[in-house]
Order: sequence, then C-alpha cells, then structure tokens
Amino acid sequence: MIEEKGILFVLSGPSGVGKGTVRKALFKKDTDLQYSISMTTRDKRAGEKEAVDYFYRTREKFEQMIRDNQLLEYAEYVGNYYGTPRYYVEETLAAGKDVFLEIEVQGALQVKENFPEGVFVFLSPPSLEELKNRIVKRGTESDDLVANRLHAAKEEIELMDAYDYVVVNDNVNKAVDKVQAIVKSEHCKRERVAIQYKKVLEVEEK
Amino acid sequence: MIEEKGILFVLSGPSGVGKGTVRKALFKKDTDLQYSISMTTRDKRAGEKEAVDYFYRTREKFEQMIRDNQLLEYAEYVGNYYGTPRYYVEETLAAGKDVFLEIEVQGALQVKENFPEGVFVFLSPPSLEELKNRIVKRGTESDDLVANRLHAAKEEIELMDAYDYVVVNDNVNKAVDKVQAIVKSEHCKRERVAIQYKKVLEVEEK
Repeated sequence: MIEEKGILFVLSGPSGVGKGTVRKALFKKDTDLQYSISMTTRDKRAGEKEAVDYFYRTREKFEQMIRDNQLLEYAEYVGNYYGTPRYYVEETLAAGKDVFLEIEVQGALQVKENFPEGVFVFLSPPSLEELKNRIVKRGTESDDLVANRLHAAKEEIELMDAYDYVVVNDNVNKAVDKVQAIVKSEHCKRERVAIQYKKVLEVEEK
Repeated sequence: MIEEKGILFVLSGPSGVGKGTVRKALFKKDTDLQYSISMTTRDKRAGEKEAVDYFYRTREKFEQMIRDNQLLEYAEYVGNYYGTPRYYVEETLAAGKDVFLEIEVQGALQVKENFPEGVFVFLSPPSLEELKNRIVKRGTESDDLVANRLHAAKEEIELMDAYDYVVVNDNVNKAVDKVQAIVKSEHCKRERVAIQYKKVLEVEEK
C-alpha cells in the first residue's frame, strides 16, 4: 500500500510572540493536524491522561532515551524533563498524518538538527513589521530608541535563518490562515508528489 | 520606500488537464493576482483593447523583441506570434503585484529558463492519481492497458521535474484552493521575508 506520509510542522518564535494563541486558534479550525504529545518526568496531575496530555516516564527511562537519541528535542524545567519522542512523531507521520509542534526557539533548533525534513515556521512579532514601517517613515523617534529596536530586530532576523517560513503575527486569524496555507502548499511540493508517483512506477516495474 | 515585490506564478500542465478552467475559477475568487497580458502580432478584433486583451505589435517589432530577449516565452500559431513581454511582468512585480501566467508546458519551460525566480505549478490530471490507486488495487485490467498508462504516466512525471509544485486537478475548487495556498505560502518564504527586513536594516545603517 502506497500512502502519502505526513509532514512535521514546527511553529516557533521569540517568547511572547503568541505561539500558543496561534496554535490554539489553528487547532480549533484544523482537525487534520495531530498535535505533538510531549514526554515528561513530572507527575501526572488529576484529570491528565497518558498519551493525551503527556507520555509520563521515569527519569531513568527519559535519560536512557536521551542517550539513545530517541528525542527530537528536550529540556529541563524546574527539575523535570520535557521532550519530543521521535517514535511518536515518526509513527504518526508514517500513518499519513501531519504532526504539529509548537515550541520555543532553542527546542526548534534541536528538532531541526534531529529532523531536518520538518517544515519550520517562525512566528514573528508585529514589532518587526512596525519597525520596518517606522524606519520607512522615520524621524519621529529618538535615535536611542531606534538603535535599540534595530539591535533587537537584528537578533530576531538571525534567528529566522534556520526556518523555512516567516509568519508575522499581526493578527491571529491571518497568522492561522498563513500557517494553514503553508501546510496545504507543502503537500503540493513537487519533490513530495513526484516521490509518490515514482514509487508507484517502481512497484509496477518490479 | 521599501515594498514587497510581487511573485510570478506560472500554471501549466498537459493539454486537456483543465488549466483554463482552474485559472478562470481562481480569478473569480482572487482579485489580488494580475493575469499576465500576452503580446501578439494578430489583428485586434472588435471589442478588444490594447493592454487589456493583448499588447498588439507588428511582426517587425515582435521579432526585434525576440532578438533582444525581451520575451519570457513566445510561440507562433497559424502565422501569428504570441508571447509574454518581460517588461510588463517585471513592472507589475516591481509594483508589488503578483503576476499569474497560465500556459502550455513548452511555454512554461521557456519562462523557467528566462525567469527562474518564478514559481512553477504543474496541474496534473486525476488520471495519474487514478493510476496510482488502480495500481495499488490492481489485477482488474489487461496488462497492455496498464503498460500504456504507465508509459504516459512516466512521461508526465518527467515533465513535473521542472516545477516547484504539483496540484492534482481532481476537483476545480480543490485545485483553486491549493493554488491560493501556494500563493499565500510563497509570500511567507523565509528568503523573501528576511530579504525585506535585511533591506530595512541596511537602509538604516547607511
């Protein structure tokens, strides 16, 4: 059986940019995406479910997975590990479902290293867009303020370099539309479509 | 003034695939795209307008433009030239508007050579998708029929190689949605967005 594989989409961006808001709004509209379920060593809380909220594992097991390179990314927060298990992502993709991961910038860079075939979307603060407009119609602000903003903007633009797409979060609905367009168009990429067809022909010629 | 440049989108595919139908349905929905106006040596007909239906030029002028490489593509049909003037495309893009060109495969390959920064979309007949399904659940058709279809499919898949995207035209509305998603997502490509921001910073640092 020849099926289209799913695609891993990673949404990231500077803290405070609104990644969580965009992700929630996206999941209200799009039921075809599978949100990536993280693995953690923290205790299960009342009402939480294994394989729904998190995969709950012991510290020993988690550290074994780190050593075996079985996590696409991980980090430690207040004494607990959190990470993205490779097998869960790969099984979901193999079943033809897209996986969606929302994560901070350091985590996204780890995923990129471990899973470069993912599609990486940078959510950019409107401040950068505003900065652009402000510089264009400049002369209304102090030199210091502009210099500070330029410095922050430069750092942000450097962060973008690891990503495939940049979506400006000036409006949640517009940002969601753009992410959905990226998901749809990535499935039309010639490399992906041609691979499927070529597989069909190979199978037939054997 | 720093503005986002438009993008040239080229929709092509085998004859009979429904390029014109998809283009018309797209233009009913999307008013932000500028349809590429062709240049021709044929006479203006009643009701036609210069720079609306075509740019009308003499044979002498057209051949001069061919020699000066001022056409992104051209062809001769029943004694008249038809082509896509480079200056019209470039001026429209410079004004920040996307240009949309629907054209047969030979023309698309010429455009690709002369304007590789365009985005090339291959409209694929559902027969290829059907072929895939048929091969998967095979055994219901004669070997000859399958062999013929495979041969045609191989030729089509080779044609795809010059394109960035493949859209299967199994349903006009779905195909239009996909083309619109491609247009939207291409504007979010990191290379394009980052270039704009970098220009802003360069301007400020001078």
